[in-house]
Amino acid sequence: MEINQRKVPEVVVKRLPRYYRYLSELEKKEINRISSNALSKLMNVTASQIRQDLNCFGGFGQQGYGYNVKQLKDEIGTILGIYDGNTMIIVGAGNLGRALANHETFGRRGFKLVGIFDVDKSLIGTAICGVDVMSSESMAEFVKEHKVDIAILALPSNAVNRTAKILVESGIRGIMNFSYCELDVPDTIAVENIHLSDPLMTLAYRIKDCRQTNNTQD
Amino acid sequence: MEINQRKVPEVVVKRLPRYYRYLSELEKKEINRISSNALSKLMNVTASQIRQDLNCFGGFGQQGYGYNVKQLKDEIGTILGIYDGNTMIIVGAGNLGRALANHETFGRRGFKLVGIFDVDKSLIGTAICGVDVMSSESMAEFVKEHKVDIAILALPSNAVNRTAKILVESGIRGIMNFSYCELDVPDTIAVENIHLSDPLMTLAYRIKDCRQTNNTQD
Repeated sequence: MEINQRKVPEVVVKRLPRYYRYLSELEKKEINRISSNALSKLMNVTASQIRQDLNCFGGFGQQGYGYNVKQLKDEIGTILGIYDGNTMIIVGAGNLGRALANHETFGRRGFKLVGIFDVDKSLIGTAICGVDVMSSESMAEFVKEHKVDIAILALPSNAVNRTAKILVESGIRGIMNFSYCELDVPDTIAVENIHLSDPLMTLAYRIKDCRQTNNTQD
Repeated sequence: MEINQRKVPEVVVKRLPRYYRYLSELEKKEINRISSNALSKLMNVTASQIRQDLNCFGGFGQQGYGYNVKQLKDEIGTILGIYDGNTMIIVGAGNLGRALANHETFGRRGFKLVGIFDVDKSLIGTAICGVDVMSSESMAEFVKEHKVDIAILALPSNAVNRTAKILVESGIRGIMNFSYCELDVPDTIAVENIHLSDPLMTLAYRIKDCRQTNNTQD
């Protein structure tokens, strides 16, 4: 496909899932098309940014018509690769691992959970959402055999890099890391670090901001 | 304080937690000062962006010296309001709620978990990480009485807006929402929506990108 030949800026790639989400919601509400301006208002970004972003992939809108919701959603989904049948495993069957296995949108976004791994013997052999919890010792073999694409690490910080090393050696291609610990993996491995305390800090700022505005108004 | 009188752009506010994290890591490694260039390399942003961002709050670096790590970290922490003793509750004591109650950095970032709420009678009266799980029926009263700042919603989508309404009426100031459902709350309430499938979609894109690069090289 031609659309991926050019290098798309990282910031644009990071914005695509948001487009996909909004378009999915519009589709659910049976809205067939949307003007560039209406989409821009809904998403709280400028219409020119939307045009610029989508132009990275060839552009989709039609002058005077706007965007066809389903078509644009499918195109963005294709660009993102969510129809590629990516497989994933979750490493760590604690509370976070379980919550992620139950996550309502992962499956809907085309990601297939094929295994869960843990060191805790009492969990091995059980199932979460119909997916087997297996011993971490069999993880390397499983990833190789099933050519697993993505691993989600729901592990304590001190176990993260040891596990990542095994996964990389077994051919994993992407890692989603929920620990505070930075991953030490080759550049060829795609990594997303999820820092759940970042949005909490942003909230603290905005609360403080309101507080001061209120004080000024008093 | 003068630093908050001006309106700071949202994008800058969103970047502050990241500065705080990197500076905390440097402090842990007992690094006392860092040049603008070294910080820029470490964080993979331009030195001019760092200067611009910090200038929103008055600027902190000294020509020829760089940044004093502890001082800059503390200033950013103060700006973010993480030393303000913000209190928070978690609504939903399922796997996600439990994982968040156990989250290693929330406490370290100055957020005090004061209560957990659930509708499940078998959980009420138990404790998670030393924090009581209480009945959702007592949530409104608790939030009012303890002037709780932040609520983390770890709930199924269909319960989210009903709960948010009660929290807003009880005086909550910020909400962190983990459900797919958009919150319908007044603009005066700070909201952070956490869409865990967004980074997963970004991973899919990057994996696909690698795959195509490899194919081209073949």
